[in-house]
Amino acid sequence: MPTRWYNLVPDLPMPPPPPLNPATLLPLVAEDLESIFPRSLIEQEMSLEKYIAIPKEVLEVYKLWRPTPLYRARRLEKLLDTPARIYYKYEGVSPVGSHKPNTAVPQAWYNAQAGVKKLTTETGAGQWGASLAFACKLFDMEASGVRASYDSKPYRRMLMELWGGTVHPSPSTVTQAGRDILAKDPNTPGSLGIAISEAVEVAASDPTAKYALGSVLSHVLLHQTVIGEEALQQLAMVGETPDLVIGCTGGGSNFGGLAFPLLREKMAGNMNPIIRAVEPEACPSLTRGVYAYDFGDTAGLTPLLKMHTLGAQFIPDPIHAGGLRYHGMSPLISHVKELGLIEAVAVPQVDCFKAALQFSQTEGIVPAPEPTHALAEAIKEALKCRETGEGKVILTALCGHGLLDLPAYDKFIHGALEDIPLPSAKLDAAFASLPSRSSTSL
Amino acid sequence: MPTRWYNLVPDLPMPPPPPLNPATLLPLVAEDLESIFPRSLIEQEMSLEKYIAIPKEVLEVYKLWRPTPLYRARRLEKLLDTPARIYYKYEGVSPVGSHKPNTAVPQAWYNAQAGVKKLTTETGAGQWGASLAFACKLFDMEASGVRASYDSKPYRRMLMELWGGTVHPSPSTVTQAGRDILAKDPNTPGSLGIAISEAVEVAASDPTAKYALGSVLSHVLLHQTVIGEEALQQLAMVGETPDLVIGCTGGGSNFGGLAFPLLREKMAGNMNPIIRAVEPEACPSLTRGVYAYDFGDTAGLTPLLKMHTLGAQFIPDPIHAGGLRYHGMSPLISHVKELGLIEAVAVPQVDCFKAALQFSQTEGIVPAPEPTHALAEAIKEALKCRETGEGKVILTALCGHGLLDLPAYDKFIHGALEDIPLPSAKLDAAFASLPSRSSTSL
Repeated sequence: MPTRWYNLVPDLPMPPPPPLNPATLLPLVAEDLESIFPRSLIEQEMSLEKYIAIPKEVLEVYKLWRPTPLYRARRLEKLLDTPARIYYKYEGVSPVGSHKPNTAVPQAWYNAQAGVKKLTTETGAGQWGASLAFACKLFDMEASGVRASYDSKPYRRMLMELWGGTVHPSPSTVTQAGRDILAKDPNTPGSLGIAISEAVEVAASDPTAKYALGSVLSHVLLHQTVIGEEALQQLAMVGETPDLVIGCTGGGSNFGGLAFPLLREKMAGNMNPIIRAVEPEACPSLTRGVYAYDFGDTAGLTPLLKMHTLGAQFIPDPIHAGGLRYHGMSPLISHVKELGLIEAVAVPQVDCFKAALQFSQTEGIVPAPEPTHALAEAIKEALKCRETGEGKVILTALCGHGLLDLPAYDKFIHGALEDIPLPSAKLDAAFASLPSRSSTSL
Repeated sequence: MPTRWYNLVPDLPMPPPPPLNPATLLPLVAEDLESIFPRSLIEQEMSLEKYIAIPKEVLEVYKLWRPTPLYRARRLEKLLDTPARIYYKYEGVSPVGSHKPNTAVPQAWYNAQAGVKKLTTETGAGQWGASLAFACKLFDMEASGVRASYDSKPYRRMLMELWGGTVHPSPSTVTQAGRDILAKDPNTPGSLGIAISEAVEVAASDPTAKYALGSVLSHVLLHQTVIGEEALQQLAMVGETPDLVIGCTGGGSNFGGLAFPLLREKMAGNMNPIIRAVEPEACPSLTRGVYAYDFGDTAGLTPLLKMHTLGAQFIPDPIHAGGLRYHGMSPLISHVKELGLIEAVAVPQVDCFKAALQFSQTEGIVPAPEPTHALAEAIKEALKCRETGEGKVILTALCGHGLLDLPAYDKFIHGALEDIPLPSAKLDAAFASLPSRSSTSL
């Protein structure tokens, strides 16, 4: 099991553009973040150290599910009749069923060390909210969240409450941001951007509380690098080098966690995999977004982040991959994409469920809707290998199981799932409200 | 990972009483079972070999979740402030989330080898039905089941369908047994005994189909001994010897799977643990049942089995531990209990959920309602150790996670769960219909 996290930033040919204070448009300083994050996590966010030691208290909890297994999908390969070798790193063995506790546990621990009593957060599918509730329970803190998919995923609400967390549907009436949005559109399906506004508002107004984010920021991706570090070790044990690394992207934490250690090896010339991010067609920040400074949330309470964004006002359709319904992409992943170090594609929801059914009927594991995006792409590549005869090594991240998402499968199996195209006009409208369109300094 | 299953029978001081043909009251012969089981599994059911090799095709599938982890519950120990050391063997890492695929996979494989095209079964909580659907899918067979808790566990129905299985609520209108029971009581909550009648009826009337049982029979317990074999190896790796082995019992497959290899070591004088079965107060076959010949199902279609039974007509209250709602106990476990080699206790449902909440808030994993019975007993023993200062080593089987049982936790957390006492009169009524009460030859 790795004992340190890997920070990609110092290895890059140039650093990512800094986050900006929205009031001054100057690069953010640590103090700007102190109302919402403890100093230790702010330092990690801005760190230029290549490796950061994992605290022993965190390692002790990691032991419950780490190292996670790396499987070869032999039965899936047989079904596809492909010479490709498909490996998947499975994070669903954590108590919550996804990779999210990899960062929830250290975030809760650092906050507890700083004397914080309560953490607020947003959650999409509920994986992150449940992870934070679990982590807070371990370190005697209170967890409070707002959920973007409250009604469609009732079991994850129950899971959060089981671990002592409290949850509100977002947009909620407990915040100004929520009330404003409900006043404009009482029937909004919500979004992660709205939920972030609400969670940040609560944390900033309560001196005993801080805010925790489940993806996007560099310290979150840092914590997730245990995935890629383990995968490298495990592939080495079976003498394999990946030709293709595929991960799904919403905010980017699962993808970054797998890809960054592999990118380090690629940049060092130790291997040369293609590294590809896969996002939903319903929320295509990397493939149809613009690379610009934007807010991380809908109400404009966060710093300005340079990222691939669909605009903070963009509300994605309520696809089942609730964890991928975010308007922006991690600034670090966006930067790496601009540097040409990774690729990106978008896939429609129905293709994802088709792939997921092939996967679960051969490999057994039922994937969460989010990683089905990576599976769809991996299967597409494996089928190409059948045509070309290439024995490519494909590595993908199965970042969680879908046992709490079975109603989505039920809909798919019974033919009740359809793709809704995303019209350019909807994107154009969202782009129009980008701060970079209204400020000449950006 | 073990490469053979352990058969307890040849190590016992005397063999268990044989199953009887209900028509002749003579000991069953292999031919009596051929309409519902393939010859290979009948041979295992009657085997006197101490070890049986696990087929390589089965081992290949086992690899997906075996070996399963053995954890020490350090955070729970800390919460309880106990000097006891609590170890739990966690079977929830299988694709289905429980120990059931340990036997579903070999049962499906042996049937496929015998040319069987379809397997029928019953399922309580749905863990077994989902496991068999998964296993059948792997070997290109059809799975068809009847469910005793169809309405209360919708996600497990979805899981079965995802793996291509078909499911009917039991009692159903597709069998004579089901129709007869519905005619008598249209509002019956069903039971495993009724569901077995229905599944056996379908298998016996379809020449391409056989029946598969998820517990009770000796070949099922045989397959589960991988649990105990692994636990022995894992405890040896940390230099521990258990003082107390605790497992929940419904039909007995999880308990037998853990306990039998430990019982072998105990009988060989290599260790001396107390081995204790824990059952629900709502369905207390070992603690309040009679040891007698009885049918395995409600309609009387199975052989007569000598076991601790509440009577095949007994309908347990619809507790959440659907997998423990069986009127009888595995004949092999019943025999071992009669020999004084194991103990048994019964616990009420609310105590189980209390224990489960303590467990999941410290260890993270949300236990299925079934193993919460063992956890409640393990916690009780650990608290006794706090009083006495004894550093006992407690080993328990956490045979599945409860992610699909979250509505039960939700009810408990919101105070909507109550214990319903089981009056002796209800038991007496069920005992009255035992075949041994009507036949002087039994």
